[in-house]
This record gives sequence, structure tokens and C-alpha cells, in this order.
Amino acid sequence: MPQDANIAGNVFGGAVLKMVDEVAYVASTRHARCNVVTASVDKMDFLSPVRVGDLVTVKANVNAVWHTSMEVGVRVEAEDPRTGEVRHTGSSYLTLVALGADGKPTLIPELVLETEEDHRRNREAMRRRSRRLEEKAVEGFASKRRRK
Amino acid sequence: MPQDANIAGNVFGGAVLKMVDEVAYVASTRHARCNVVTASVDKMDFLSPVRVGDLVTVKANVNAVWHTSMEVGVRVEAEDPRTGEVRHTGSSYLTLVALGADGKPTLIPELVLETEEDHRRNREAMRRRSRRLEEKAVEGFASKRRRK
Amino acid sequence: MPQDANIAGNVFGGAVLKMVDEVAYVASTRHARCNVVTASVDKMDFLSPVRVGDLVTVKANVNAVWHTSMEVGVRVEAEDPRTGEVRHTGSSYLTLVALGADGKPTLIPELVLETEEDHRRNREAMRRRSRRLEEKAVEGFASKRRRK
Amino acid sequence: MPQDANIAGNVFGGAVLKMVDEVAYVASTRHARCNVVTASVDKMDFLSPVRVGDLVTVKANVNAVWHTSMEVGVRVEAEDPRTGEVRHTGSSYLTLVALGADGKPTLIPELVLETEEDHRRNREAMRRRSRRLEEKAVEGFASKRRRK
Amino acid sequence: MPQDANIAGNVFGGAVLKMVDEVAYVASTRHARCNVVTASVDKMDFLSPVRVGDLVTVKANVNAVWHTSMEVGVRVEAEDPRTGEVRHTGSSYLTLVALGADGKPTLIPELVLETEEDHRRNREAMRRRSRRLEEKAVEGFASKRRRK
Amino acid sequence: MPQDANIAGNVFGGAVLKMVDEVAYVASTRHARCNVVTASVDKMDFLSPVRVGDLVTVKANVNAVWHTSMEVGVRVEAEDPRTGEVRHTGSSYLTLVALGADGKPTLIPELVLETEEDHRRNREAMRRRSRRLEEKAVEGFASKRRRK
Repeated sequence: MPQDANIAGNVFGGAVLKMVDEVAYVASTRHARCNVVTASVDKMDFLSPVRVGDLVTVKANVNAVWHTSMEVGVRVEAEDPRTGEVRHTGSSYLTLVALGADGKPTLIPELVLETEEDHRRNREAMRRRSRRLEEKAVEGFASKRRRK
Repeated sequence: MPQDANIAGNVFGGAVLKMVDEVAYVASTRHARCNVVTASVDKMDFLSPVRVGDLVTVKANVNAVWHTSMEVGVRVEAEDPRTGEVRHTGSSYLTLVALGADGKPTLIPELVLETEEDHRRNREAMRRRSRRLEEKAVEGFASKRRRK
Repeated sequence: MPQDANIAGNVFGGAVLKMVDEVAYVASTRHARCNVVTASVDKMDFLSPVRVGDLVTVKANVNAVWHTSMEVGVRVEAEDPRTGEVRHTGSSYLTLVALGADGKPTLIPELVLETEEDHRRNREAMRRRSRRLEEKAVEGFASKRRRK
Repeated sequence: MPQDANIAGNVFGGAVLKMVDEVAYVASTRHARCNVVTASVDKMDFLSPVRVGDLVTVKANVNAVWHTSMEVGVRVEAEDPRTGEVRHTGSSYLTLVALGADGKPTLIPELVLETEEDHRRNREAMRRRSRRLEEKAVEGFASKRRRK
Repeated sequence: MPQDANIAGNVFGGAVLKMVDEVAYVASTRHARCNVVTASVDKMDFLSPVRVGDLVTVKANVNAVWHTSMEVGVRVEAEDPRTGEVRHTGSSYLTLVALGADGKPTLIPELVLETEEDHRRNREAMRRRSRRLEEKAVEGFASKRRRK
Repeated sequence: MPQDANIAGNVFGGAVLKMVDEVAYVASTRHARCNVVTASVDKMDFLSPVRVGDLVTVKANVNAVWHTSMEVGVRVEAEDPRTGEVRHTGSSYLTLVALGADGKPTLIPELVLETEEDHRRNREAMRRRSRRLEEKAVEGFASKRRRK
């Protein structure tokens, strides 16, 4: 849509991220069946620009659940409506937290892993989480050192 | 604004990211004086939720320039209009590419580093870039291995 | 979204119809691979109200192609994100015309009917079209008589 | 407005329907003086395309009232702002239901028919209603037969 | 609409001014039959607040034409949809300039004053214009004195 | 943004006024720390047109406080992103009223005037207020005379 693009016709990365977050919201709400908020959005590379008039498809999947938070994987594709050519625009991983009626984190139902694909995605989500926790520890250490 | 929030009054992370991208667009356009597109948005943690009615301030700074791309650092703050309390909502780093009239990457003017703060930000941007390049190499290796 | 609803929290029928038209646009563009415009939207009953916060799903299918026009069938469902309960909100049939670069109607590729479902939808689309043509003839007659 | 049109400059039929529904909402609220929801929108033919920049006028009239529901007739005209040429874009009939504070259908004040035009519109609305009820009966019969 | 109001449900004055400008744009385009831009908007007092859910009516009239510019008078009314009570929200006068295809001011057709009301509005527009020109002269003098 | 402009690419004056009002809202909320509503917007001249793609900056300052109302001065600048050229688009003065939780006017904290600039702005706001009160008196007299 024109309002999502600059005057050169390139869709703003932020407009794509907004869609990514919305689709992750829908996917995670459907799993948790309660209010959810985005706690973090992973780095996202825009592999190819999106143009005004492209049909953008965003696919989301809940990859893993940890008590009150879950990882949702998102894949963005842009399709040229004239040619049908589909380009992979980018992928990202979001962490969302489930909130109860009192606005506090609440337990999310366990994920049922059925296919081999489900298991692979879950393993990779676990690995990404370890890396995130490590990075946080490193960052905490670095920011402490900087403050001295 | 209400249209940026879910029915529980929490502003969507994606609505914040949209603002982040817009402000980075303005800051980088002002430096490059040409059309720019977002090539990547760094991981962003939402340290505290944003509520409908909060005043959101997004500050951006061009930290480093590499030929046709540049890093913009962005800091998001949410202010409760009633109390004046300001919370740090999150920070992110975006890479934007300058495009010429032909839509191809074009040279960006060098950054003039004046204050000690400018130099610190530039050094950290350089370090983040090295890490990004390393990660890309690792990812490329991993995705090759996965395909075998 | 709040901007699509009146102050009592009921989503405007027009907001739903806008989505219906957009999804029909995407489905028909994907088939025709050119610019398309809506020529008519069938009567649509809102079987159950849509509330702010409901997840609305719109499914579209190209049912039949006649030279430069095609019928797209659309089904709207509203899902309560808390309970997962899905209600059939309504269905409609739209006729869209394919336009060439000169803005004039252009030929649409034939539809390949594969499943039994495809054939059933095609037959029903044919029947609806006959009825529409009949009604037009009747209306034309009636409006002529009225003018006398 | 640009956001209501595809990249070829044709305003989406759905954007027009959204306006149709909004104007019907205003007209029926003014008559019923309570909350109203759209129960059905009649088939609408787009007799001529609307272009970005056209001035669109939507006129609505409450044609008939049946206890808790009413029919609103809507006429859409598009005007070329440069030439002043006005084209009839389409007409539609909507059925809206009045809702009380408890969200349940509530009685609508009787319509006062004054001019000959008012009486003609009322008669035609009655006729359309009979046809709608007949069609519903036929559809019910058909859908029963199909299920066997 | 909710997006036009603050969290207390008061519609932003700016949202009303946006409507005022749009309606003045339509009225002046219809008279000039060319592109127009707003050159100035008169002081506007908000005599009574507008609430989310109110039906806002904006009426505009071209009061006077001076070669390439014209004055449009605008009256804003807010109606409580439940009670039908209409309040005068405010009035304003806008000056719009007609632009030719080259983007330069172009002549506007003379206004045909028919009713006594037309003549009164025209006389008052003339008086307001004299006052505006006087004020501009005074302001110019004041700003010169301030710079010394 | 495209949705704020007519088809010739000129941003609507009303879209600029909407921004003016929003920024005045933020500035006055930050001073009053309560809900505020716009009571009047001063005449605003559009000294130079704003084009789609321009970066628009709106600066606001609370100039004076009178018990429950305050004057906010606003300056609008448009910047050509390609050249960096900044044009003064216009300035305006708004009067906003602070509202308590009961929706009634409430006291605003006194303004602390520190710099010479603060004092100058405050003096000028006082002068504008006297003029507004005088004009109101004159208008009231005139409208009384007209009614006779």
C-alpha cells in the first residue's frame, strides 16, 4: 500500500516488521488463548526489497514454549502480482509472553510436536534461546565493565 | 494511539518497530541526502511495555558509515503523560543502504566524528559490524551443513 | 482493530467488506496475473457480528472464468482469540474484470479444475451467473416499465 | 485517497463499500437513535470505476422499518473534480438492525412517509424484502437437498 | 473514530481541522475545477468538545473569489447520535489558491451571487480580507521594529 | 506520506494542522501533567507548500499559563530530504485547557520563565491574549447588532 512506502516506492522495513509482529501475535494468541505481548524481536535481514504493489505473505509458527514465553518463527515472502515470482524477503524469530487477566505472565500450554519438522524447529529454538541467554550474560558483563 | 494496541491496551511491538524504522529513515536520509532502504534491523528487546496514551520518543543517531551502508542507533523511550515518568523501552541498531536515482547503492558522505561520544559510538558500531560479518559466516556454514 | 468498530465494539460491516474485496483482489490477481477491478459484489449476510479483538480470516477461491471476468467466492470467519471458537460470519461472491496495460478488459487464463470440489464450485458459479443475467434482464424490463 | 487504490489508480470496490456502510450507519443511527449493526448488504454493481482523486458522494435514505430492522438505500456517485462530470457508480440496499444498551435488537420508531417519493421507496423496499425472504426459503431448501 | 481522540475520548482539535480543510478543498475544487492548495486557515474556536462517536458534519461555502484565490467559509457541527442534539462546534474561514497544471496560481471563475445570503457572505468575506491585509501590514511593521 | 496529499503531491493544510495540534497536545500535556483539550487554534498562514516526501518538523513551546488554560506556540518547518534545505512553513498559537479526572477545567502549574527568550514569548502571549479578548468583545457586539 502506498502509505507503507517512501516516495521511491520501496516499502519501509518498519511496515514489514509491523506485519511480522501482527502475524506472530495471531499465531501465539491462537496457541496460548490469552493476551500476549512481544518481549523481543530478533535481528531481521531484508534479503530483497519489497515494492509497492507486491503481495506480501507472512507465515508464522510457534516453535517452542518455556512456561510463560514462547518463540514464534516468521517467514516473509513478497510476490510480484504480475509474474507470480516469489522472493524470500526475510525471516525472524520473536519471543512473546502470555499475560493473564491480571496483566501478569501466565502459563502457556505445552507444544505438541508431531512431525519431524516440528522437532527440528523446536531444537533450533532451544539452541537460539541458549545463545540469547549467553549473549545477555556477556552484555551484562560488558555493560558493567563500561560503567567502571 | 488505539489502532496500535491490542484490546488489553498494550501497544504492539511492531508499531514501535515501525516508528524505530521511520526515525532511522529520517536520520539516515538527513546524513546521506538521498533515498535509503533498511537492510537489517537488529534484535530488539522490549524492556518495558508501552501503553496506549504513553508519549513515545524515538532518538536516532548515525553511528558509522561504510561506503554505501551505514549503522543507525535508535533508542526508544515511553513517557507516562500524567506523571512524567520516562522508561527506557528498548534500543536497536539498523543498517541502511543509500540508493542513487538508478536504484543502485551509492556512496554516503563520510561521518565527521566530533565528540568523545561520537567516537565511542563509532567504535562500538565497528565492533557490532565485525560480529555481524562473523555470524553471517557461521550461519552460512551451518546452513550448508544442514543441506547435506 | 478499534478504528473498524463503532463505540459499542461492533466491527462495521463495511470494514469486513473491505477485507473481502482485498482478499478477492489478491486471489484474482494471482490467477489473472494482471490488474483487476471489482465489477460487482454479491449480497452478503452478516450471520454473526464481529467484535473488536476477533481474529478475522477471509478465504477466497477463483470459481469460474468467463473471457475477461471471473467469479471469486469468499468466506469470512471470525475467531474469538481467547476460546478459539470460530463462527462463520458470512460468504459472498465477487465478479472481477482483468484489465490490460491499456486499462481495457483483457483475457484471463482458463481455470484448471482438478478436484471434485473445484468442479462443484465451477458449476455453482455458472448457475449464479445465469441467475445474474436473468435478473439483469428482469431489472432492465422493470426499469423500462417504471419510466413509462 | 491513494491508500484506497491499487497501483493502477483504481479505487478498490471494498473502499467504496466501506463508505457505503458508513453512510448507511449514519442515516440509520439518525433515524433509530441507538446503536445499529449491518445485517446484510445487497449485491452492488460497480457501473463505472472510481479513480484516485475523484470526489465520491454517498447518499443514504431509510426506506422502510420492520420492528427492529430497517432498509437503507444508498447511491454512490463519483465526480471528476476537474470537469465536474458526475457518474452514477452504483447503488445498494442495506439491512441494519437496531441494538439496545443490552446488545439485543430493539424497536425502531416508525417511518413517517411524506412525499410520493417516500411512498415509492417504501413500496419497493417491501417488495425487495419479500424477494429476500423467498430467496432465503429457496436457499434453505437447496442447502438441505445438497446435504442429503 | 477512536484514532482521532485522546484516551479521555475527546476528539483532537487537529482531527476536526483536518476535516475542515478537506471539505474546504472539495468545495473550492468544485468551484475552481482545478487543483487548489490551502494558503491560510483562520483562527478557529472550539465552542464545544467533540466526543468519540459523535457524528460530525462540516458544511463549506465559497464566499468570495479574488483572481487566483478564494475564501471558503466552514461550519462544523457535532451531533450526539443517541439524542440527535446538534451543537455548533466552530466555524472557520480558509483561503485557498487555485493552481494550474504548471503548479502556478491560475484564474478562478467569478462567483455568481444569487441569494441575499450569498451577497451577505460575500460582503463579510471582503471585510475579512481587508482586515487580513491590514493585519499583515501591521505585523510586517512590528516584525521590522523587533529586528532593529 | 501519500495519504496526506492530493493527487498533485501537495500535502493538505489540514494534515499539517493535525500535526500542529498533536505536537501542541504533547507539549501542553507535559507541562500540565493531565488531560488537555484544544480550545482554539490561531490563524495559520502556509508560507510555502509542503510536498510529499518532505520531512516535516513541528516545534512547540508553552508560552504562557492562565489558571486553567495555556498558550502553546508552534513552528512548522519542511525539509527537502535530498538537499537539506529547510523552509519555514508556518507558525501558529493554540490555546489548550487542562481537564481534571472529572472532565472539568483544572489548575495548571505556573510556568517558570528562565531565559530572556522565555520572557519575550510570555510577554507576546499576554499581548495576543488581550487582543483575543478584545476581538471577542467586538465580535459579540457585532453579532448582537446583526441579530437586531
